[in-house]
Amino acid sequence: MTTAGRPRLSTKKRPGETAREEILDAAAELFTTRGFTNTSTRMIAEAVGMRQASLYHHFANKDELLDALLSGTVDHPLAVAQSIRGSDARPEVKMYALALFDAGQLGRSTWNLGALYLLPELRNERFETFRAHRHALMDLYASIAAEVLDGTVGAVPGTEDLPFRLVETVVNGRADAESGRPSPAGDYARVVAEAAVRALGWTGSVAELHAEAVTFSEGILAW
Amino acid sequence: MTTAGRPRLSTKKRPGETAREEILDAAAELFTTRGFTNTSTRMIAEAVGMRQASLYHHFANKDELLDALLSGTVDHPLAVAQSIRGSDARPEVKMYALALFDAGQLGRSTWNLGALYLLPELRNERFETFRAHRHALMDLYASIAAEVLDGTVGAVPGTEDLPFRLVETVVNGRADAESGRPSPAGDYARVVAEAAVRALGWTGSVAELHAEAVTFSEGILAW
Repeated sequence: MTTAGRPRLSTKKRPGETAREEILDAAAELFTTRGFTNTSTRMIAEAVGMRQASLYHHFANKDELLDALLSGTVDHPLAVAQSIRGSDARPEVKMYALALFDAGQLGRSTWNLGALYLLPELRNERFETFRAHRHALMDLYASIAAEVLDGTVGAVPGTEDLPFRLVETVVNGRADAESGRPSPAGDYARVVAEAAVRALGWTGSVAELHAEAVTFSEGILAW
Repeated sequence: MTTAGRPRLSTKKRPGETAREEILDAAAELFTTRGFTNTSTRMIAEAVGMRQASLYHHFANKDELLDALLSGTVDHPLAVAQSIRGSDARPEVKMYALALFDAGQLGRSTWNLGALYLLPELRNERFETFRAHRHALMDLYASIAAEVLDGTVGAVPGTEDLPFRLVETVVNGRADAESGRPSPAGDYARVVAEAAVRALGWTGSVAELHAEAVTFSEGILAW
């Protein structure tokens, strides 16, 4: 474990290989359970078992922590979307594979950080990098969706944004589950990926598409 | 205009027929632009041009204000969903009509209050009434979706939650538009209503379904 700044006050309290990762994990827990504004850097430092001054060796302030956490939810899917976009698979295979991957990672992450996407605080220019990356991801989704629409008999015009929006509903489902709503039965990532292609007007066999997308993904992704 | 409590400090500053409505409008603006935790009841009173003590004649605290605002986003759709559910229209007409109505009202409301649905603060028991109404609305969506699945050749099992989730994406689209993302072209409520039935596996003519749902809605709703 690396220890920048002063020595840690106590033994390791949080998951994470480095002090930086432990801080991020503690911040993610507090932001998603107490709220961003209700959390102070002192609380985060206490949750890690570290002095507040040591925390500042890693992150200058709370906004920087939130930016790192939110960027973390977007940057991997963005890289994956770029690989998928550049491949020569059929458009519906690309769309399904991207939605399945992204919905899966949003569903599996330890903390439901996507619940913070709509915070009005994020309109601040300090989060411009995160916003730019998120918009780049939305554009990649829309451009793959446009390829599907081009190649589909019965395509529904104006639906380019739906696959991205459907994937984001994983966040709402998790937030509702955390406030007492039963989670949907079955594999929601798969339901979302299937709906993403159907919403565009694609009407082929999803069982075949799923198998094809999984093989395709194994070829180009490190799942 | 009714004036409970002390006289107002200044002339009317906000939209709304009553002091209560003006307070709600000011709170909605501040909660959705500054954030819930960053807003005090004093700021809300100032935005209305009213003493803080007068505001407390209408709402005991900030949580009560948020609960009233959020309940307002759910209670009308809930009444509409109950009427629709009890009607004898075909299931896909009911589903499309509900999604079109609800996506429309979420898109047209002055402030994008749905952006507050995911606040961790809402897990507090003080918001239990709002949560119960929201869950009742989700259940009505799911039960109408189940009717569609029952009557559809090629129905996709496990998709009962998607129509509600699709409608909620109106909130995300508005939030992204407020942070600099161009809004989707066209009528997003209609795109969502169409996707809601398609995601369930229904594959008929949506132009006909739209016309039928609009006529049906005029019959039972005050749009």
